[in-house]
Amino acid sequence: MAKKLDPTIMQDWEIAAEAEKSMKPIQQLAEEFGVLTEELLPYGHYLGKLDYRKILSRLVDRPNGKYVDVTAITPTPLGEGKTTTTMGLVEGLGLLGKKVSGAIRQPSGGPTFNIKGSAAGGGLSLCVPMTEFSLGLTGDIDTITNAHNLAMVAMTARMQHEFNYGDDVLERKKLKRLNIDPYNPAIGWAIDFSAQALREIIIGIGDKMDGFMMKSGFQITVSSELMAILAVARDLKDLRSRIARMQIAWDRKGNPVTAADLEVDGAMTAIMVKAMDPTLMQTIEGQPVLVHAGPFANIAIGQSSIIADRIGLKLSEYHVTESGFGADIGFEKFWNLKCRYSGFVPDAAVIVATIRALKMHGGGPRVTPGKPLDEAYTSENVALVEKGCENLIAHIENVKKSGITPVVCINHFYMDSEKEIAAVRKAAEEAGARVALSRHWELGGEGAKDLAGAVVEACEEKSDFRFLYETSMPQKQRIELIAREIYGAEAVSYTPEADAKLRRIQDDTNLASMGTCMVKTQLSLSHDPELKGRPKGWTLPVTDVLVYQGAELIVPVAGGIKLLPGTASDPAFRRIDVDTETGKVTGLF
Amino acid sequence: MAKKLDPTIMQDWEIAAEAEKSMKPIQQLAEEFGVLTEELLPYGHYLGKLDYRKILSRLVDRPNGKYVDVTAITPTPLGEGKTTTTMGLVEGLGLLGKKVSGAIRQPSGGPTFNIKGSAAGGGLSLCVPMTEFSLGLTGDIDTITNAHNLAMVAMTARMQHEFNYGDDVLERKKLKRLNIDPYNPAIGWAIDFSAQALREIIIGIGDKMDGFMMKSGFQITVSSELMAILAVARDLKDLRSRIARMQIAWDRKGNPVTAADLEVDGAMTAIMVKAMDPTLMQTIEGQPVLVHAGPFANIAIGQSSIIADRIGLKLSEYHVTESGFGADIGFEKFWNLKCRYSGFVPDAAVIVATIRALKMHGGGPRVTPGKPLDEAYTSENVALVEKGCENLIAHIENVKKSGITPVVCINHFYMDSEKEIAAVRKAAEEAGARVALSRHWELGGEGAKDLAGAVVEACEEKSDFRFLYETSMPQKQRIELIAREIYGAEAVSYTPEADAKLRRIQDDTNLASMGTCMVKTQLSLSHDPELKGRPKGWTLPVTDVLVYQGAELIVPVAGGIKLLPGTASDPAFRRIDVDTETGKVTGLF
Repeated sequence: MAKKLDPTIMQDWEIAAEAEKSMKPIQQLAEEFGVLTEELLPYGHYLGKLDYRKILSRLVDRPNGKYVDVTAITPTPLGEGKTTTTMGLVEGLGLLGKKVSGAIRQPSGGPTFNIKGSAAGGGLSLCVPMTEFSLGLTGDIDTITNAHNLAMVAMTARMQHEFNYGDDVLERKKLKRLNIDPYNPAIGWAIDFSAQALREIIIGIGDKMDGFMMKSGFQITVSSELMAILAVARDLKDLRSRIARMQIAWDRKGNPVTAADLEVDGAMTAIMVKAMDPTLMQTIEGQPVLVHAGPFANIAIGQSSIIADRIGLKLSEYHVTESGFGADIGFEKFWNLKCRYSGFVPDAAVIVATIRALKMHGGGPRVTPGKPLDEAYTSENVALVEKGCENLIAHIENVKKSGITPVVCINHFYMDSEKEIAAVRKAAEEAGARVALSRHWELGGEGAKDLAGAVVEACEEKSDFRFLYETSMPQKQRIELIAREIYGAEAVSYTPEADAKLRRIQDDTNLASMGTCMVKTQLSLSHDPELKGRPKGWTLPVTDVLVYQGAELIVPVAGGIKLLPGTASDPAFRRIDVDTETGKVTGLF
Repeated sequence: MAKKLDPTIMQDWEIAAEAEKSMKPIQQLAEEFGVLTEELLPYGHYLGKLDYRKILSRLVDRPNGKYVDVTAITPTPLGEGKTTTTMGLVEGLGLLGKKVSGAIRQPSGGPTFNIKGSAAGGGLSLCVPMTEFSLGLTGDIDTITNAHNLAMVAMTARMQHEFNYGDDVLERKKLKRLNIDPYNPAIGWAIDFSAQALREIIIGIGDKMDGFMMKSGFQITVSSELMAILAVARDLKDLRSRIARMQIAWDRKGNPVTAADLEVDGAMTAIMVKAMDPTLMQTIEGQPVLVHAGPFANIAIGQSSIIADRIGLKLSEYHVTESGFGADIGFEKFWNLKCRYSGFVPDAAVIVATIRALKMHGGGPRVTPGKPLDEAYTSENVALVEKGCENLIAHIENVKKSGITPVVCINHFYMDSEKEIAAVRKAAEEAGARVALSRHWELGGEGAKDLAGAVVEACEEKSDFRFLYETSMPQKQRIELIAREIYGAEAVSYTPEADAKLRRIQDDTNLASMGTCMVKTQLSLSHDPELKGRPKGWTLPVTDVLVYQGAELIVPVAGGIKLLPGTASDPAFRRIDVDTETGKVTGLF
């Protein structure tokens, strides 16, 4: 590259803009990745979708590469750089001469236009082109918005027609009366913005041709069950049948009304076809990165798609995927849900740790976004770090329970001291993990060589991968297992409602065997974001249980879920603009 | 093509599927069209966007080709084949060895999933790939939905924050109090489906962080002012300034609150950047077709974009564009709005007529979609045709008032008799038009050679193009001019409300000079859809006047406008599905 890229004096968008001048054209990127011309659907000069069907059927007999998950310790509210580390590790493995690919989620328009901050990594560990990444990419989220809302159109129009027409008319049109319960909507509409004014609404005001009056609401598209489905669907057939089972409403007898009941499942799938192909991007050092799906990390698996990983594993020696939130949530879902659905056996997991977060777990003062860090975080304090390592150790132990090798990545910050780093290294190694200090943010692949080397070594170790539970285990027993073994809870409590729901689920063989997808804060190993370190002697309170039949997830809720964030009073959109001479978008990052 | 394509025994989708087997790859199509590699942004193998900025700056000095508009007589509710004729004419000109391109609108998801029917032409005059055309194409409509809804997010979040926070907090965040009037919303949200349940809604129910409770609603995306703007914007700079002027709300003193006031105009433009590039498709005979924008034909110009025509005129000898509705609306808006904004001088206008519609205007029985045609339409009835030609003559006279040459295209149906055709030919020629019988539906370009020849001749005639009015003419005078001269009204009446609005508009020099964009039914030359032929002695009732500051349109309303259609009780989505083995969408057309 012409200009020296230095993250200590350049913003991420400046680095991206400079790096984008020497991006590989998508055809070259795809060819180097091993994709044939007819398997690449270019979207402009630097983005493309990969025809998953063609690639996977061509490579059906090729063995998979090594499979690496990137997860993290319990983070501060600032985040500890998981995506940055994912990109850095891909760059580092590339620099070691390995054929490597990465996989990350597509960001939602909600945060992009509300709170500043890219989800494309940072420093010299970035995914480009960055503007396109932030502004809708190849349209998958819009596709999901549309398919989701078509289900709602079908539901609300059906309610209107059943209300207005007699049985004779319905019969003539071959419509069975579904008797949808207007007082108990199963889902609402989707929009990919932080539109809090649409959280709770009344629809169908007006005349008898203007719908049926009832309460409704919107959720952010990335929280839609369709997004959860896209992340886990194995192929189009699987997608089709999952969409058919999606519950859109309840009838007045309390039975689920599905997309298939509304005869809209085929059309929803038709809309979704193009979303099944992952998007190909690149790190600023030119390695391929797959971007596909962006489900929530609470009510869904919170990681990019199985299809993207299928492609990456076929085409690369090392495929690095990222799971959302801390390892107690993200890795646990990667392990027991994503790998179970995909059938893939991971080889290693990277646990990203920062000295900053460890100090917080050791008792450091509260870390608040937008406020300057307390001195405890900017000057040496080995005692805080040592104490905080109990959180890291919990995550190391958890990863080891899956039978694969943990690699702790100390994501280096300039204010970290040698002694602090040594303390982490000691604690992690004693807990049985490999450890690497990594300076990928500052130096890109060059700074991640140690990490990459440690990951290569970890992947060479014999893996003894096993699930935490079998699907024959009752849901309640699984919840208790996850709570005790992974979170370190002493017990689990249930509200009577949650208890009753779990009993009904257990009585239904179909539901009983579905995956268990916990909802809990990522800011603590416990359900209480205030409890840092490795909390002991606490009880996990399960207040509700959701059922996503299409995604095949039973979702025990031990924390608040907000499916539609709000826009702040000083949102990012105020500063976003376009240079009308060049078409370049400014102020996005 | 391997298989003989016969529309008398094949459905449109079967023809498209067969023709798509020998489609030109997008790179070849673009190259033959004269687009350079770096100016093409491929979207898969058979679609691409054209970088309008690069193309137009490269060809700034190249003279424009001939400019042909396709319009129609007053149609039956079945439509008379304008898009089919546009495609057929492009194919016919191609067969004559002319370098030709077409331009049509992108269809909305509302009709696609509700009422069967493609907007890609028909028979052997089709635009392909057809599935992509119907299912969101390259995402422009989604982009408009997003940019529109971001304005609503900005408005509703601002109302909440102004309600919740004192002046001190607002001042600290550098937010001026806008005092938006919750009782008088200027616009609502956008969705591209026929979601009648969202027409009238109440939003912001819940707590003080869940928005501000007020009435709101949704409109279909293609009716958004942003879509109207996309169709007329000359370039990105023009788009940026039009978006800034878009009115989102009224304040409590009755002043407009614009996107610029909400500081969201830059971000909206950022979202829209990619929508500025038209999409390139092809006829089934391989000529280029530009698809760009799809605004309503009532509250907007109802035709594809100026940018698409700019590109077509630079790259082709003949560029054929289509205007929505009958010539009284579509051609009048093409003439006095689109050509005024673009500065282009058209060379000819094709008026599509069918024997069927002429019989209806001559007094034939009502034509209703879904019901079999009356015998009057399926057997010879020269008298009805002769009588009905008065409607055709009105449209011919109107086109002649613009100073360009009308070409009547008799869009041939198998039941048309020689005598009926001769009657139309005689009437049209006497009214001063060229006439061609065209069998493009049945035979493609081969069937449109006569039409193409007539268009070439018409383009050779000296054009004396002039606007119906100058922008210095007061709005009321223009309305009366259009009503009398184009529609044949005897007078215009105004409700007191419309009258008062027109007076206020006239007092504002900025508004007074904006374009006049009439709203009226297309099913009659008058405002009353029941009046067929060439109605006399009637008064046009103007009931309201809308102002679109961004699109620069003053919209006098002489008829109902529904900005959000409803989904029928037997919608098309019931029959749409996907072959999960091949990914092929079925049941769409």
